[in-house]
Amino acid sequence: MKPIAVTMGDAAGIGPEIIVKAWSEIQHLTGNNAVVYGHSGVMNKAAALCGLPADIPCIQCGDAALLDVPPGTVDARSGEAAYLAVIRAVDDTLAGKTSAVVTAPLNKAALNLAGHHYPGHTEILAERCGVSDFAMMLYLPASQVPGKNNEGLAVVHVTLHCAMRTIFDQITVENVLAKAKLADNFMRRMISDKNRRPHIGVCSLNPHAGEDGLFGSEEAAVIRPAVDKARAEGLLIDYPKPADTIMIDARGGKYDAVVAMFHDQGHIALKLLGMYSAVNVTLGLPIIRTSVAHGTAFDKAWSGTAQAGSLIEAVKVAVRLASDGNVPKPHKDTE
Amino acid sequence: MKPIAVTMGDAAGIGPEIIVKAWSEIQHLTGNNAVVYGHSGVMNKAAALCGLPADIPCIQCGDAALLDVPPGTVDARSGEAAYLAVIRAVDDTLAGKTSAVVTAPLNKAALNLAGHHYPGHTEILAERCGVSDFAMMLYLPASQVPGKNNEGLAVVHVTLHCAMRTIFDQITVENVLAKAKLADNFMRRMISDKNRRPHIGVCSLNPHAGEDGLFGSEEAAVIRPAVDKARAEGLLIDYPKPADTIMIDARGGKYDAVVAMFHDQGHIALKLLGMYSAVNVTLGLPIIRTSVAHGTAFDKAWSGTAQAGSLIEAVKVAVRLASDGNVPKPHKDTE
Repeated sequence: MKPIAVTMGDAAGIGPEIIVKAWSEIQHLTGNNAVVYGHSGVMNKAAALCGLPADIPCIQCGDAALLDVPPGTVDARSGEAAYLAVIRAVDDTLAGKTSAVVTAPLNKAALNLAGHHYPGHTEILAERCGVSDFAMMLYLPASQVPGKNNEGLAVVHVTLHCAMRTIFDQITVENVLAKAKLADNFMRRMISDKNRRPHIGVCSLNPHAGEDGLFGSEEAAVIRPAVDKARAEGLLIDYPKPADTIMIDARGGKYDAVVAMFHDQGHIALKLLGMYSAVNVTLGLPIIRTSVAHGTAFDKAWSGTAQAGSLIEAVKVAVRLASDGNVPKPHKDTE
Repeated sequence: MKPIAVTMGDAAGIGPEIIVKAWSEIQHLTGNNAVVYGHSGVMNKAAALCGLPADIPCIQCGDAALLDVPPGTVDARSGEAAYLAVIRAVDDTLAGKTSAVVTAPLNKAALNLAGHHYPGHTEILAERCGVSDFAMMLYLPASQVPGKNNEGLAVVHVTLHCAMRTIFDQITVENVLAKAKLADNFMRRMISDKNRRPHIGVCSLNPHAGEDGLFGSEEAAVIRPAVDKARAEGLLIDYPKPADTIMIDARGGKYDAVVAMFHDQGHIALKLLGMYSAVNVTLGLPIIRTSVAHGTAFDKAWSGTAQAGSLIEAVKVAVRLASDGNVPKPHKDTE
């Protein structure tokens, strides 16, 4: 396996610290086969902060001016360096020099100050890879799901970052089906037992799954037909159930993946179960990319208190996908 | 204090069993001052099932035919008896003979078969009390909220049992304000330290609290103005925050009550935190009424496996409210 590329993220955030804290575990997970895309001076400073060894291999991105950026501040210099690190890691992975990109958090405002106008990481990656059809998935490792022993729980959202008034037009048979297939495809790669099909739960949109039509018709009109289509394609997937019931069942280990209809349905459960260990996986890219599910945490950056759990889990997922043997294909083909 | 009236619920459900299991604790909580509204023969059968003493004082409701109803079945005889028990307990409490009504679950279908066409308990109670303006609140005891030591967490919903498409018209300044005041009023009665005002959190409707208007305008247009009005009336209440963040904070003990905008926002968190200990409190009645937050569980009725936690917590809340000294007033007056 080629090395795993770990980007440093924004130098003023918790990225450098969590990489230093996670490094021995990352080396163990990758068989001493990981490399940081960032600035060695910043990494050494973080190592000193944590009292840990400063022997992390680094592909130098950014210059010494980065050392002058005060902790927890929005600065064009750190925005620029973080951007360069991502671009370089993507290019090297596209070129086959590295096997996956694992990203530490960057800061949107710093990115903008540096002249790079993207909503976040994912859009940079998609543009650099020449892909327009991509999706984000959240993955909770088994350690955060009491009923799970091996693989964890994936959560995909049919609608995500939009006003609640606008979700209804987006909840279509096609979109529900597409998200179920993404979840199935991802978990098939994650599950060790290749004879076991992932079991997928689908949240209803309305309370009590619509209470037989009394509280809305989308369950019967949209979600059930999507499940029927998914079943016809071989997925092991249940008819829509009330979201509050699904999340209890998911915690108990019943499901490998849950399809949520909107942001809060997925995120309330994810955060209560253990957001600090959650991994963000971008699907639909020609490369493997995982990420921490948290931000730069400027309020506690460079204080030595950051937790590296999410980064370690992101590396685990990247290694699992990279050693799966399936070369990732563009989103529309994997569907 | 006058006795607490505990209704037996549907004889084919888990009501009799959970009362028997909870009885010694109920006697302890009420100072040997509780009485069951139900059928003594059924209660004795439940006591025998559990191997517990059959010495529970009972106001007889229903006749011996009740003993012939098979466990876990919808039957007009148990529907009728459950209805009579509720009516009688309400009448006695209205007459001042009992201090509060605590209800075990009844079955909607059995109620209907017996000719009583109500969606559930609450509507029977409201009609019998001559009240049209009432509200349901869910209360999680401190034992289910890791950050809490004394009082627990109340959750009120601005919208509840309705289609998601219809929630937007119901999320008004008036409705958000009314629910916040209900939550404040209830928790002021629950909190021992009468100098401490309940701290109330308010969920935003849209993801990321609307992301500064990018994901919807209700936070700025409706919810914040409602919070301003509530503050002007003396409530200790925060501006809307993302629902996923609020629930983490609530678990950590920050809030005494949370106002949710719709069903799943409240229920996903409530169920994950511990729905089997949750209590349903009806506000706006001229009497005190609490209830278990679960149903008749026909699938496991009379098997000896039912858990009595929710009933015990419901009695605790009833005792707390009954000994608070505040005579409950109709809903609109308490606002």
